[in-house]
Amino acid sequence: MPQSAHANVRIFIGTEPVSVVPPDDRALAYGDGLFETMRAHRGTVPWWDRHWARLQRGAQRLRLALPSQAQVRDEAARLLAGTDGVLKLFVSRGCGGRGYALPADPVPTWLLSLHPVPRPVSGLTLRWCDTRLAIQPVLAGIKHGNRLEQVLARAEWDDGVAADEGLMRSTVGDVVCATAANLFLLQDGQWRTPPVDRCGVAGVCRQWMLDTFDVEPVRLSVADVETADAVVLTNAVRGILPVARLLDTAPGERAWQPHPQVVEWQRRLAADHPAFTAPADGAHIMEVP
Amino acid sequence: MPQSAHANVRIFIGTEPVSVVPPDDRALAYGDGLFETMRAHRGTVPWWDRHWARLQRGAQRLRLALPSQAQVRDEAARLLAGTDGVLKLFVSRGCGGRGYALPADPVPTWLLSLHPVPRPVSGLTLRWCDTRLAIQPVLAGIKHGNRLEQVLARAEWDDGVAADEGLMRSTVGDVVCATAANLFLLQDGQWRTPPVDRCGVAGVCRQWMLDTFDVEPVRLSVADVETADAVVLTNAVRGILPVARLLDTAPGERAWQPHPQVVEWQRRLAADHPAFTAPADGAHIMEVP
Repeated sequence: MPQSAHANVRIFIGTEPVSVVPPDDRALAYGDGLFETMRAHRGTVPWWDRHWARLQRGAQRLRLALPSQAQVRDEAARLLAGTDGVLKLFVSRGCGGRGYALPADPVPTWLLSLHPVPRPVSGLTLRWCDTRLAIQPVLAGIKHGNRLEQVLARAEWDDGVAADEGLMRSTVGDVVCATAANLFLLQDGQWRTPPVDRCGVAGVCRQWMLDTFDVEPVRLSVADVETADAVVLTNAVRGILPVARLLDTAPGERAWQPHPQVVEWQRRLAADHPAFTAPADGAHIMEVP
Repeated sequence: MPQSAHANVRIFIGTEPVSVVPPDDRALAYGDGLFETMRAHRGTVPWWDRHWARLQRGAQRLRLALPSQAQVRDEAARLLAGTDGVLKLFVSRGCGGRGYALPADPVPTWLLSLHPVPRPVSGLTLRWCDTRLAIQPVLAGIKHGNRLEQVLARAEWDDGVAADEGLMRSTVGDVVCATAANLFLLQDGQWRTPPVDRCGVAGVCRQWMLDTFDVEPVRLSVADVETADAVVLTNAVRGILPVARLLDTAPGERAWQPHPQVVEWQRRLAADHPAFTAPADGAHIMEVP
């Protein structure tokens, strides 16, 4: 099999392994693709079915052909080789000429890459991003390759300076998510999360939360977040991340103590997905984004 | 110099020619780049300065480093080798790890590719697209690599079936542009074009029109288009394109005769940019998108 110069990357066009991404690939030209970022545990991806289902929804929305799931899964297992890690799958529509029109019979280009598990930290600090998410129902929910909004939002602060993640609002003001995680908050005894019908990504861990716990999808305001009784972020790589601080609120800064229900959720998550270690008694374990 | 497998493509990282696009390029992952599509004439790009100026505005907005203009222009001349054609320049932020955070010192990846000049046709037929453009001032006007809206809009109809181009509205209903061209219309003796401050691209030919003629930038409705006295599309590859028909209007279809002022504009364009041939007396010459 041809090997990429990048040891932890495998590239395919249709069913064929190749050594390079073609320069006329439409993901390069237009961001015309979809991706999944998955937590792997001892060589397998416990939430594979959830990731593949979201990929299929995205492919249907973009009218994009997917490679064979069986082949992708086999190649993923080969790349993982029994280890832990973060597995990224990118599927591009494939090659095309100049111009937006779809190629007649595009063959998907797809890439698998393996990345280290992010290091754990205790207590997330959030900030507000100025960059807003545009209202675009056609692209909302799916994990497509047009990510300049997230890139610009994440560029608003430097690594290691004050904040671990940034919260994003839509252009009409409601709070939607963090740059790379979904948002949950506790309000009057009810957990809530923003819908992702106008912008934002339908996170795989978010969906697991909705399937598993009593969480209400409802639009949330800045005030809802700043007055919440508890706040957590979720994503499929890092699991459930309790938030300890929110900067730049009206009184300067908001702080939260670890909430017992979140610790319980983390235990439940660990039972469902073995990569997410259950917290020790009385402790809350988090991973940095 | 390493040659790409694609004869009409040159790839560079910073100042260095390379043979492939790295698989961890951020344009591939996030559409994190900018492009220009330029009409070349006898080996030169008459509107080079206008294209480079827009690229610089985009680079400032995205905080993206550009390659040396002198080198890009030299390599473009080498690729063109004295011919006519369409020259595409794509500039990616460069390589990066997994995650939206900007790499510490990214070196731009850039591609030059040469494409045939589109064939001329007489009389553009337009349709309305269902896919809307999201309101996103941060990305409006610049020619960035997040183009799924245009891809989905262009996928609404098949090549050669009925329409040459499709008009796009924003998510709040105003008419903004075609999938790959700007829109101008004549209304009560005044030419008007939609602003591109909330969505849409600040086309290089659009800007030439604004600099050269009396055109008012103002938001336009579907009714404004359907009742206009004349309609044209513009872009930097095809110049000024008179519109002959608009499908799917309230009375079924709207047709326009060639407008004498548009013929006069085409003559003026030909004087400024020699690739755009002036129409013969009494004729209007157009190029298909």
